[in-house]
Amino acid sequence: MSSMERVRIKDIAIMAGVSVGTVDRVIHGRSGVSKESRIRVEKILKQLNYQPNMYASALASNKRYRFACLLPLHENGEYWSDVERGIMQGTQAYTDFYVGHTLSFYDPYDYHSFTDAANRILEEDPDGVLFAPTRTEFTAPFVMQLNERNIPYIYIDSNVREYPALAFYGQNSYQSGIFAGRMMMLAAGKEADEVVIFRKINDGIVGSNQQERREIGFRSFMAEQHPHCKIWELDLHAKHNNEDFSMLEAFFQAHPHVKNGITFNSKAFIVGEYLEAKGISDFKLTGYDLLSRNVSCLKRGSIFFLIAQQPSLQGFNGVKALADHLIFKKEVTPENFMPIDLLTKENIDYYYNL
Amino acid sequence: MSSMERVRIKDIAIMAGVSVGTVDRVIHGRSGVSKESRIRVEKILKQLNYQPNMYASALASNKRYRFACLLPLHENGEYWSDVERGIMQGTQAYTDFYVGHTLSFYDPYDYHSFTDAANRILEEDPDGVLFAPTRTEFTAPFVMQLNERNIPYIYIDSNVREYPALAFYGQNSYQSGIFAGRMMMLAAGKEADEVVIFRKINDGIVGSNQQERREIGFRSFMAEQHPHCKIWELDLHAKHNNEDFSMLEAFFQAHPHVKNGITFNSKAFIVGEYLEAKGISDFKLTGYDLLSRNVSCLKRGSIFFLIAQQPSLQGFNGVKALADHLIFKKEVTPENFMPIDLLTKENIDYYYNL
Repeated sequence: MSSMERVRIKDIAIMAGVSVGTVDRVIHGRSGVSKESRIRVEKILKQLNYQPNMYASALASNKRYRFACLLPLHENGEYWSDVERGIMQGTQAYTDFYVGHTLSFYDPYDYHSFTDAANRILEEDPDGVLFAPTRTEFTAPFVMQLNERNIPYIYIDSNVREYPALAFYGQNSYQSGIFAGRMMMLAAGKEADEVVIFRKINDGIVGSNQQERREIGFRSFMAEQHPHCKIWELDLHAKHNNEDFSMLEAFFQAHPHVKNGITFNSKAFIVGEYLEAKGISDFKLTGYDLLSRNVSCLKRGSIFFLIAQQPSLQGFNGVKALADHLIFKKEVTPENFMPIDLLTKENIDYYYNL
Repeated sequence: MSSMERVRIKDIAIMAGVSVGTVDRVIHGRSGVSKESRIRVEKILKQLNYQPNMYASALASNKRYRFACLLPLHENGEYWSDVERGIMQGTQAYTDFYVGHTLSFYDPYDYHSFTDAANRILEEDPDGVLFAPTRTEFTAPFVMQLNERNIPYIYIDSNVREYPALAFYGQNSYQSGIFAGRMMMLAAGKEADEVVIFRKINDGIVGSNQQERREIGFRSFMAEQHPHCKIWELDLHAKHNNEDFSMLEAFFQAHPHVKNGITFNSKAFIVGEYLEAKGISDFKLTGYDLLSRNVSCLKRGSIFFLIAQQPSLQGFNGVKALADHLIFKKEVTPENFMPIDLLTKENIDYYYNL
């Protein structure tokens, strides 16, 4: 069984009795072809129902594209570094089509920072935008401007359904929280009657839509499946890492019977490294995202489960969606949920991360 | 921060004071350029250290490619259908580069069938080959012929380390068996002291290298972590599906205390559907691969865990590796382990399957 084969420009040239260059010029609407040859070539193209080669067309157009990318401010090696890597690999994959990108950042605990960065992007007048949205009320003014200017934009990490983007790439956070609850309680075993949620908070701001929705999903699972299980909370300070250790110490002293906990951000290693420092080996911790410090804790056993969501692929696919839309005129799927991946020390080495 | 930008043919034409067509003809070594213009363009290309656009070069070559694919014989909807789908999507993605494929099959329980199919492929003289190897002694004569003829080949599903292919795509089966054991025993809880392995066997042939190695990994985990757990085996007939039900019935009557089981092939649904038919709800079953009947059992609860390995991506990446090597002259990574993915009814809907 042979798959359908494409008509080559060479074949069309033979059929029309003209040169390959002439067929090429007709297809891309360039000058330098006699009227007679043009009519002959166009007739054959029509007979064959010829679809122009999208790569050839894009290369012939010779246009440059610049995508503006906006992510939460982060340190090297954090979750967003993986997203950044995916964006870089995306633009590299399309470098032959003259795609480049700019990258800027906002403080996730300061909503005004997002607005400032968004305004700078609007001044740059990019061909497309890829960004991680903040709360809807601060995202809306930006995307309304983008819509007005006909600049396509991609959401990564979390979706803003009220203002649909060209495409969204991210996890279903609510369902991810349900899955996290299921796996955590499986590891906890039948006797678990109290668990703890560790957070990082600044002035009441959790810092990401994803984290908020994961916790909502988790709590709905617990309410339904484990209604009698007590859920403690420990709010660590987002901007005072030096207080983490003493706050964890105080918590564990006050709650010696809590043996299972979860973080909905990517900072599970803070708790994992505390457990290691204190020699606590009977606490089962579930966390998110494959930061290298998280992975180290998983391999040493101080994190029991990590849940991941292909951050590099989110960045890569975001760039690909802009290229497909702007360069190749292909249709783009609007809602793209990333997998909810479970990692243990037994399968972490084979996780496919672009 | 702006990423590196490419020099366009247009820019080179302006610098050399010639037309875009002339630059294009020089880059692709075509005739119709004066000696003077050729020297001028070549000088500028050298100054700029110009790398030819790989898409443009491939399109200019106008060559057709045919990849021969050989998979185990299967019914529609089985595991191999997903691999097939990935192969189709792969050749579709490269249709603009005149890539096509042929597909043939062998009986996994009959080693001679592989040899016959391999010989037919050699007669076709393809540009590249992608196949699921059978046992080493039957795979070797085929790949020695391919090596002799300089035809690149890709292994999918299982690797044959003694005869390295251009690239291998598949799971680390041994590690996958360890992971399966870990998750199964976690679900089983502390009290589990006997478990069962369900197999499909024909004349002593398990039918896949993968299944054999998964079981070896699983048994090594059990020997180390659960040395006192008794492991039963039930060998169902690969070619007599109508006997499955009565054999399962006999097994469960003889072993009423076994509450945890595993299949290393993709036929967990046989056991899952039996459990449903008998109204057994306290047996926890772990299986492999996302056949629709397996997924239905997972969602209804008669399968507890499914482990998956991105079969479509294996097929797609296999075609991509051949295209990268033959068409784009890119380097190809030889050993590519697929992820060991855990699916439950909570995360199955978001599994990324190409």
